[in-house]
Amino acid sequence: MTKQELFENIKRKKSFLCVGLDTDIHKIPDYLLSEEDPIYTFNKAIIDATAPYCVAFKPNAAFYEGEGIKGIWAMEKTIEYIRTKYPDQFIILDAKRGDIGNTSERYASSAFEKMKAHAITVAPYMGEDSVKPFLKYQGRWVILLALTSNKGSQDFQLMEDANGERLFEKVLKKSQEWGSEEQMMYVVGATQGKMFEDIRKIAPDHFLLVPGVGAQGGSLEEVARYGMNKQCGLLVNSSRAIIYADNTEEFANAARAEAKKVQAEMAKYLSQLS
Amino acid sequence: MTKQELFENIKRKKSFLCVGLDTDIHKIPDYLLSEEDPIYTFNKAIIDATAPYCVAFKPNAAFYEGEGIKGIWAMEKTIEYIRTKYPDQFIILDAKRGDIGNTSERYASSAFEKMKAHAITVAPYMGEDSVKPFLKYQGRWVILLALTSNKGSQDFQLMEDANGERLFEKVLKKSQEWGSEEQMMYVVGATQGKMFEDIRKIAPDHFLLVPGVGAQGGSLEEVARYGMNKQCGLLVNSSRAIIYADNTEEFANAARAEAKKVQAEMAKYLSQLS
Repeated sequence: MTKQELFENIKRKKSFLCVGLDTDIHKIPDYLLSEEDPIYTFNKAIIDATAPYCVAFKPNAAFYEGEGIKGIWAMEKTIEYIRTKYPDQFIILDAKRGDIGNTSERYASSAFEKMKAHAITVAPYMGEDSVKPFLKYQGRWVILLALTSNKGSQDFQLMEDANGERLFEKVLKKSQEWGSEEQMMYVVGATQGKMFEDIRKIAPDHFLLVPGVGAQGGSLEEVARYGMNKQCGLLVNSSRAIIYADNTEEFANAARAEAKKVQAEMAKYLSQLS
Repeated sequence: MTKQELFENIKRKKSFLCVGLDTDIHKIPDYLLSEEDPIYTFNKAIIDATAPYCVAFKPNAAFYEGEGIKGIWAMEKTIEYIRTKYPDQFIILDAKRGDIGNTSERYASSAFEKMKAHAITVAPYMGEDSVKPFLKYQGRWVILLALTSNKGSQDFQLMEDANGERLFEKVLKKSQEWGSEEQMMYVVGATQGKMFEDIRKIAPDHFLLVPGVGAQGGSLEEVARYGMNKQCGLLVNSSRAIIYADNTEEFANAARAEAKKVQAEMAKYLSQLS
C-alpha cells in the first residue's frame, strides 16, 4: 500500500484508527475457550466489528508467540482473514525486530513473504544494516521506534549529545538516509504530547504510528493537534480499550461502539485538514 | 543455571564456546531435505558433534520463524533435545526482543516457560519497563545488547553525551540498577577489539556474550586478552563458521573439528586464569 492510498482510505473512512490485536487468551470471553481456535475466533469478530471504523490492524506478535505453534497459526490466519476480506486495511506486524543483516533478512522475509503484512515495527539500536533488509520490499513499510509511549522511553531515547540533539532525533534524521517517507514510518507514543512538535520539525511528511491512547492514557486530541500533517500523517493505535471493552457475548458490539466513538472524534480532527 | 555453575562448566570443558544455531534451510546439505524435519535433523547432528567442545547453544529465532510453524516447531524440539540430552548446556534464545511491559511479559513467558531457554537476548531501546519483565524469572538470564558486532553499531551506540559518555556505556550502567550480574549479561561484538577494556571498567564481573568471531571477522585472541575476567566472563559465539563448515554428509564431523579447534584455542586462554 502506498502513502497516497493510505491517505485516501483515511479520508474516505474519516478515521486514522489502528486497532491493536493484542489478543490474550486469558482475557477473551470464557465462552470462546470451547472453540477450536479461540484466538482466531475472537479476532475475526473484532475485525468484522471494527473494520468500518479503522484503516489498520496491528497484531502484536508477542501475544501469539506466547501461545506457541497454535498462537502463530492463529496470527497467520488472522492476517490472511484481514487481507482477503478487507483488502483496504493496512496490516502492521508489531514485532520490534532488528538484528545483524543476515538475520534481519530472515525477519523481513518472515513478516512480508510468509505473514504478508504491509508493515513491521523495527528497533533502531543496531543501526543501518539491521534496518535496511526490511526496506528492500517494494510497497512494504518499516515502522521504526523513535519515541515510545512507555516510562522507559526516558532512559535512553532522551539522551542528549553535546549539541543538545537527542537520541530519538538522531534516529529520525539518520534513518531518513536509509529510506523515504514512502516506505518508513516512526513509532511515537501518544503520551509524548508536545514532543510531536519537535518530531514534526525533523519528519514533517512521515506517517507516525501512535500507540498509547486508551489504556496507556495518551490524549487523542493532543496527538491530533501537535502531530497531524497535510496528509493526516497519523495512525493512532488503540488495543486494550477497544478489544477488551466487554467480556461477555457482547464483546464484539462493545468493541464496535468503542471504535466508532474514537472514529467520530477522529472525523472531527480530519475535518480541519484543508 | 547460576553464574558459578556456568563457570564450573567452562573450567571443566576448557571452553567458553557458544555454538550458534542459525540453521538456514537453504544452507544445510541437500540430502537432508528428504527428512521429515530437515532443520531438526541437522541441529541434532550439530549438537551431538559439538556438545563436547562448547558450553552453550544459541538458536537464532529469525531462522526458525522464517520457516513459519514448521520452523517454530523445529526450534522447540531443538531446545528440548539440548535440555534433556545435555542438561549442562546453557541455552540462549537469540531473539532481540523488547516492548512495553505487558508485551515484554509475553515474550518472557514465551522464552522461559514455553521454550524453556535459560537466557534471551533483549534490545535496550525502550528502557527499564521493557527489560524488567524478563528479570522476574529466577535462574534465567537477560542478555542485553550493549555494543554489537555489526557496522550499524556505530550509528547510535557510540553517540556521546556532553560528558563524553556513550550510549552503550549508559546502557551498561543504567541496566545494573535493574538486575545483578547473576541474571544479566551483555552482548559485545568480537569486532570491537580494545573497546572491551572500556566495557570491563563499567561491568567488570558480568558475563559477555560475544558474537562476531568467524564469519564476521572478530579475533578470539583479542576478545580473550581484553575481555576475560576472573570467572572467564565470556561466552564467545560462532555460528556459520562451525555449522556450515562443510556441506556434504561429513557436515557434522566438519563442525566437530571446527568446534574442537576453537575449544583448543580457548583452553590456552583459560589456562592463563589464576
